[in-house]
Amino acid sequence: MSAKPKFAVVLSGCGVYDGTEIHEAVMTLLAIDRQGGSYQCFAPDVGQLHVINHALGAPSDEVRNVLVESARIARGAILPLAHYKPADYDALVFPGGFGAAKNLCTFAVDGPNCSVNPDAEAAIVATHAAKKPIVALCIAPALIAKVLGKVEVTIGNDAATAEALNAMGASHAERSHGETCVDLVNKVVSSPCYMLNATVGQIADGAHAAIAQAIKLM
Amino acid sequence: MSAKPKFAVVLSGCGVYDGTEIHEAVMTLLAIDRQGGSYQCFAPDVGQLHVINHALGAPSDEVRNVLVESARIARGAILPLAHYKPADYDALVFPGGFGAAKNLCTFAVDGPNCSVNPDAEAAIVATHAAKKPIVALCIAPALIAKVLGKVEVTIGNDAATAEALNAMGASHAERSHGETCVDLVNKVVSSPCYMLNATVGQIADGAHAAIAQAIKLM
Repeated sequence: MSAKPKFAVVLSGCGVYDGTEIHEAVMTLLAIDRQGGSYQCFAPDVGQLHVINHALGAPSDEVRNVLVESARIARGAILPLAHYKPADYDALVFPGGFGAAKNLCTFAVDGPNCSVNPDAEAAIVATHAAKKPIVALCIAPALIAKVLGKVEVTIGNDAATAEALNAMGASHAERSHGETCVDLVNKVVSSPCYMLNATVGQIADGAHAAIAQAIKLM
Repeated sequence: MSAKPKFAVVLSGCGVYDGTEIHEAVMTLLAIDRQGGSYQCFAPDVGQLHVINHALGAPSDEVRNVLVESARIARGAILPLAHYKPADYDALVFPGGFGAAKNLCTFAVDGPNCSVNPDAEAAIVATHAAKKPIVALCIAPALIAKVLGKVEVTIGNDAATAEALNAMGASHAERSHGETCVDLVNKVVSSPCYMLNATVGQIADGAHAAIAQAIKLM
């Protein structure tokens, strides 16, 4: 790995119900910074599946772009996911939020038969082929399971979601707050985060533990 | 104070250029959680001054509401700022971002002659009158200075902004990363955060230190 581990963080919008879960994204960046790493945020340059009014919890008729909204979390410092190359980074990280299951793939709508955004798929396949670690928080392991198939991951303890992951060829392992599931063969690290009813401190713990495991795998 | 200190956190949108600075908001929530407190997010139910495309750093022709966008950071758990009562909380906190100087007041546009959102003004005046602590990060001390006038605050070390604060009757004090300025008389705590060129870890340090000072003042 680099002297200072470099993480590519893939965002999927800005807000839990239609994009990246904001606390998970920011705690990922904090975990990287606290453990001596640097980061570059990426997002696919595509339209969001839809826009949710987060005050009402109801769909809005607005149209938003995943890259443009993700840039809010990245303070403008973001690149199109199509530009990502594993050679330039030591690990690839996917925070959660519905965006991971609506914009990076369609798991939230289509379950195990979901389709995957081509840039997200290419990034995962190339990172896996380069034998570099991939971190997936919250619901993002569904995306990894769809792309890699036979992989061990956790989304916490939700039985229906675990069953859907297993139906895509993955092997689900139960985990609690701040814990990780580490697939040593595939170098895939996952942690439940807000797939459990969690405090923001527990999200920080989960992100920190997941990034620590990724560094060990470099 | 309550056995578990209760913080009201006032958001001003979702994104550094037209709303709340997201890292500062999330690090505020983390700092409260890590120090044994609880929080409730608030935002004024008004239109944003404008919408900035954060990928381009340029204005967009969209129209967005401050409460609705702030709800993204709060994961939906947000109340209109007009509902805030100091009796229900132990402290009032304003993270920064341009939203504090565009939506809660117009300092970013009008400088010392800015106007203040009536709900924000009422919340600050009532909290000050109740002798409860007020925390302001980044550029948010400009809002406090406009409302309270004679108060000691920091926005870091930017000379022009410091001069504008002094022009509103405040007394500016220079501070660096993770440091706070504490006005013991007015119970106002401020920290520079992204008014300095900072890492996300330094934002966490600044938010943590500011919340710690607020707890001491309860």
